[in-house]
Amino acid sequence: MRVLVLGGDGFCGWPTSLYLSERGHDVTILDNLSRRKIDVELEVGSLTPVAATGDRLRAWREVSGRQIGFVQLDLAADYDRLTAILRELRPDAIVHFAEQRAAPYSMRSPAAKRYTVDNNVRATHNLLTALVHTGIGAAIVHLGTMGVYGYGWSGSAPVPEGYLTVKVPTPAGELEREILHPANPGSVYHMTKTLDQLMFAFYARNDGLRITDLHQGIVWGTQTPQTAADERLINRFDYDGDYGTVLNRFLMQAAIGHPLTVHGTGGQTRAFIHITDTVRCIEIAIAHPPQPGDRPMVLNQVTETHRIIDLAKLIADTTGTQIAYLPNPRIEAEENDLTVRNDHLLSLGLHPTTLSDGLLTEVRDIATRYAYRADHRKIISRSVWRAGMPCASDLVPSWALG
Amino acid sequence: MRVLVLGGDGFCGWPTSLYLSERGHDVTILDNLSRRKIDVELEVGSLTPVAATGDRLRAWREVSGRQIGFVQLDLAADYDRLTAILRELRPDAIVHFAEQRAAPYSMRSPAAKRYTVDNNVRATHNLLTALVHTGIGAAIVHLGTMGVYGYGWSGSAPVPEGYLTVKVPTPAGELEREILHPANPGSVYHMTKTLDQLMFAFYARNDGLRITDLHQGIVWGTQTPQTAADERLINRFDYDGDYGTVLNRFLMQAAIGHPLTVHGTGGQTRAFIHITDTVRCIEIAIAHPPQPGDRPMVLNQVTETHRIIDLAKLIADTTGTQIAYLPNPRIEAEENDLTVRNDHLLSLGLHPTTLSDGLLTEVRDIATRYAYRADHRKIISRSVWRAGMPCASDLVPSWALG
Repeated sequence: MRVLVLGGDGFCGWPTSLYLSERGHDVTILDNLSRRKIDVELEVGSLTPVAATGDRLRAWREVSGRQIGFVQLDLAADYDRLTAILRELRPDAIVHFAEQRAAPYSMRSPAAKRYTVDNNVRATHNLLTALVHTGIGAAIVHLGTMGVYGYGWSGSAPVPEGYLTVKVPTPAGELEREILHPANPGSVYHMTKTLDQLMFAFYARNDGLRITDLHQGIVWGTQTPQTAADERLINRFDYDGDYGTVLNRFLMQAAIGHPLTVHGTGGQTRAFIHITDTVRCIEIAIAHPPQPGDRPMVLNQVTETHRIIDLAKLIADTTGTQIAYLPNPRIEAEENDLTVRNDHLLSLGLHPTTLSDGLLTEVRDIATRYAYRADHRKIISRSVWRAGMPCASDLVPSWALG
Repeated sequence: MRVLVLGGDGFCGWPTSLYLSERGHDVTILDNLSRRKIDVELEVGSLTPVAATGDRLRAWREVSGRQIGFVQLDLAADYDRLTAILRELRPDAIVHFAEQRAAPYSMRSPAAKRYTVDNNVRATHNLLTALVHTGIGAAIVHLGTMGVYGYGWSGSAPVPEGYLTVKVPTPAGELEREILHPANPGSVYHMTKTLDQLMFAFYARNDGLRITDLHQGIVWGTQTPQTAADERLINRFDYDGDYGTVLNRFLMQAAIGHPLTVHGTGGQTRAFIHITDTVRCIEIAIAHPPQPGDRPMVLNQVTETHRIIDLAKLIADTTGTQIAYLPNPRIEAEENDLTVRNDHLLSLGLHPTTLSDGLLTEVRDIATRYAYRADHRKIISRSVWRAGMPCASDLVPSWALG
């Protein structure tokens, strides 16, 4: 299958590209390298030493004998080149990771809010328009987020797979309707994924585009068998306050002896998935697209849920690290329960990789190996959801900053 | 009250600006004149001779003794100047008309689809970000559309005012929830207004912005007492296939002896409002903003509903004009019923101006007076919702084109 991976140089995009290539697909990456450029802007970098994209692709060719194409292009800006590339490559499937994906980054400044909306909306809409325009019937597989549902909205009911059956009162009695789950985004970033949903619904209905939206939980882990095959293929590891995600951050903090940073009570329950399952889910989604005329297929790309404080305690107990309770920069409930339906992906063949000591250790080993690359001043999150909210004072004593 | 009218040079924005000025508000118009520029692009113009913005404003000063400010600015592009203007003017209320507002235009080409999304999403999001950024607590009054609800979605139930009470099944029994009415937009233009809704919900919740979203029906009529006070104050009259709206188009077609263009069976039921009520509703909305922390207030800015074919027959009967049944370029149900709740605006003091011979005659008189300005080749709508759909062949005999 010819697969175009938009954002294929990023944390999920890169291991996905390698996995699909290894599985025999003809993969082309399209990326504007914005994630690397934001590292430059934030004066931070991946904990792991990520090779230049060209070097990564040459290494993959040496290691696997397979070739992955690469186009450096800004999906949000360069529409004409996008249509030219679609006509040239004629992909069967397009995996769309090409969005700014950090909630704290999306809230850190007016410029970051505007960038997140402008980039994400235009990237998605340019893709949709270009598929209609060129008449190329590629199936789209988009990375959404569990954050579109919000937390605790439907009480004790498990979060359904995208659509919710509700009863609507009418003069003629109750009417049963299946609706897109109401949107309850917690940040500008999450909001953009709710905007994507409405664009997908429209283009599926009006133009028969085939779209799968994968509402992913928090990804943890770093390496897949493919990225681990050569040092030059190593995946990103974000540990900073903007892009680092919770479980990986705890493991990295434990590895370098930094207190585990829990925001608020830690009573928030979140959904998780291991990076090796992310890449498998995407292959499953590519293999099972909806039909033209179908509404977007929504799958919850999630394997388990955990309370943040439970994860912190697990890691604190096994490593002897302390927990630091910091102000919560988000506007959200202090505590919530969460159960999630993921029946569809399971029925299509996903065998979940759940939290285990072995995998936790693997992440800690990576973090320990590259601990010397960490900038301790970048660990604390300084984004707040509303101006004037309390922000964590620096946990790192000044002598440690050298 | 200091009122900033974004898009204050357009068909609804201009009479609103004059009305608010006459009512004693301190009005500033912010407009990039995009509507006039799209006229240039489409090689068409308002049936009525619209004066240059500067001349309009000078005329208003002569006629009324009142001054309206004007800033030529692209809200979607020039964020820094927007924040500077907000800080300088410190408006109490901001009326937001600054969006591309024609469904057929939004579907006519990939470029028009992209422009509609890019312009509308960025205009709205820049405004929201700028209010948070500057800390200016102006109440926003936004022009939405009845098209966000879709037609016939809730069976025979009247369309509620923005929010719908539904029952959600949970393991612990049914849960009652009030949700934003599910989005069912019929065009890229309508879709952008559903995206606006999600942005409003987020910024109201996260930042306490006060937002009113007016879901307007199809506006008919041309003049208000203020725009009729001087020839140089005359309002736009769009009759072309992209920007002309149904009732005004029928009246103009009757005035020039063109067959009335009904797309499909005419069984579509739509909501309407007269332009003199539009401007009153906006004053009502400005006077009754929600409180910080409230969800967006949604009002249906609608006074009556009619089936398209009934309107066509009414005008055909009184004028002896023929009806031409053309292919429907939209993807929509052939027929639908529609009733709409507008209790809130009525309770706040709106006295509806409904369809009457007098007002219909007023529009036909305007159309007759300026019939010589009509380009008959521009009357037929040539946008189709999906490539390959049948398009109306030209109804105008070639000899009529001169």
